[in-house]
Amino acid sequence: MVRGYAGFRGVLGHEVVGVVDWAEDRSWIGQRVVGEINIGCGVCEVCQSGQPEHCANRAALGIRGRDGVLAELFCLPVANLHPVPVEVPDRAAVFAEPLAAACELLEQIHVRPTDRVVVVGDGKLGLLAAQVLALTGCGLTLVGRHEEKLAIVARRGIETRLSDEGLQGADIVVECTGQPAGFQAAQRLVRPRGTLVLKSTYHGLVEADLSQLVVDEVRVVGSRCGPFSAALRLLAHGLVDVTSLIHSEMRLEDALAAFELAAQRGVLKVLVRATPE
Amino acid sequence: MVRGYAGFRGVLGHEVVGVVDWAEDRSWIGQRVVGEINIGCGVCEVCQSGQPEHCANRAALGIRGRDGVLAELFCLPVANLHPVPVEVPDRAAVFAEPLAAACELLEQIHVRPTDRVVVVGDGKLGLLAAQVLALTGCGLTLVGRHEEKLAIVARRGIETRLSDEGLQGADIVVECTGQPAGFQAAQRLVRPRGTLVLKSTYHGLVEADLSQLVVDEVRVVGSRCGPFSAALRLLAHGLVDVTSLIHSEMRLEDALAAFELAAQRGVLKVLVRATPE
Repeated sequence: MVRGYAGFRGVLGHEVVGVVDWAEDRSWIGQRVVGEINIGCGVCEVCQSGQPEHCANRAALGIRGRDGVLAELFCLPVANLHPVPVEVPDRAAVFAEPLAAACELLEQIHVRPTDRVVVVGDGKLGLLAAQVLALTGCGLTLVGRHEEKLAIVARRGIETRLSDEGLQGADIVVECTGQPAGFQAAQRLVRPRGTLVLKSTYHGLVEADLSQLVVDEVRVVGSRCGPFSAALRLLAHGLVDVTSLIHSEMRLEDALAAFELAAQRGVLKVLVRATPE
Repeated sequence: MVRGYAGFRGVLGHEVVGVVDWAEDRSWIGQRVVGEINIGCGVCEVCQSGQPEHCANRAALGIRGRDGVLAELFCLPVANLHPVPVEVPDRAAVFAEPLAAACELLEQIHVRPTDRVVVVGDGKLGLLAAQVLALTGCGLTLVGRHEEKLAIVARRGIETRLSDEGLQGADIVVECTGQPAGFQAAQRLVRPRGTLVLKSTYHGLVEADLSQLVVDEVRVVGSRCGPFSAALRLLAHGLVDVTSLIHSEMRLEDALAAFELAAQRGVLKVLVRATPE
């Protein structure tokens, strides 16, 4: 987004927790909420079928056609809002959006307790995906490049590795690296008739060995936004550790420095607070 | 295969009907059979789980590590054989292998009677896939480039088109062109959260827009060999027209000319007969 690939101009930011300042339905005012980021047209077939996140004319908070959340005030339809359970602190609730995206994995594919699953990539999404997948009881390995990031989930008993050697034949591989090489690695790891989930997007086209997908009858599943309700339940039940992903907290007036910090190697989540605590 | 991309040297051919000349279990001798083309190692986990067609060390008739069927005699394990029902003539039975590959579509994905389905490509596989899919009652369109090929399935009431204009938003798209451009066209046709089945392989890598798969949460399913038993039932019940795909029949001694003929534009199946009728 910052590099301009998506052509967006406006206020950035879409992972947020906040308090409703004004709504026509006054019962919302003062509620602490998180918000789904896609706003569909509301009238097309896709919206009518309850999937505004796939509306061809959707806006997306801080991504497409609508200013984002790095501001004192921002605007969302109440239909997008989810009240945050009281037991979930702000520092956890702000992860509802990426955690929902991790939950989308389980919404799209059936992960069996006996499956061998490999997550490739130890960025925020990889760490969240691994934690959500671990809840199924599956045989899980997270492959990453940063010992300190891997340690976050290793503390929760998840097997982590700095190399994917010897992991061939996985039933399910989840690609979270955002690198074309990650897709190719994932393809090497998945077994014939296995499932390869793409959680991250790439800039530009990728040279892909589609024939091998056919020969091995592999299933590739693109996966993006997910269910906020499930993410909030996992947070309320303390089943996922998100706060360990926080590198630091900064004030809104230091947001530019926050972006620079977040771009550094090894830095995970940098929180920006728009209002005094 | 003929161009040498697969590095195979030996007798070509894997779509066949024949009579058993010799088997240790003498009850097979004299039976008219078709045969599955993959021969697994028999001992690995994949073979033990009943999927020899995905054994890493498999041989494949006329494709890898085993001479094919363009000969007076060829050799297959009896485990690969399926007796041909008496009501299926040779000229239909010889299509058991590609028809099984078309049936694999329904083995892998659930096609609903209310789904909008587009098959792209009017080669043999596209024509067979379209006929098998039509049996589900789904809303089906076959997009091809050859009016005379499209006519074969149009006679059976299947909608055919020479262009994919206006077909966007399909629930399921089946790519049977064997061309990278076919993959890209299929991607344009499938709806968000739809399914794109790859039935054909490509030579080399393909430039693919994997990010669009993620954004639209599309499911890509590689699909190869399928169930012979189901294919033989469809043939026995007369539910699929395969003999209209036959362009001509030639003798084994004219097999080189048969290959040249089969490579010409618009020519579908050229049968080669190794024994006098």
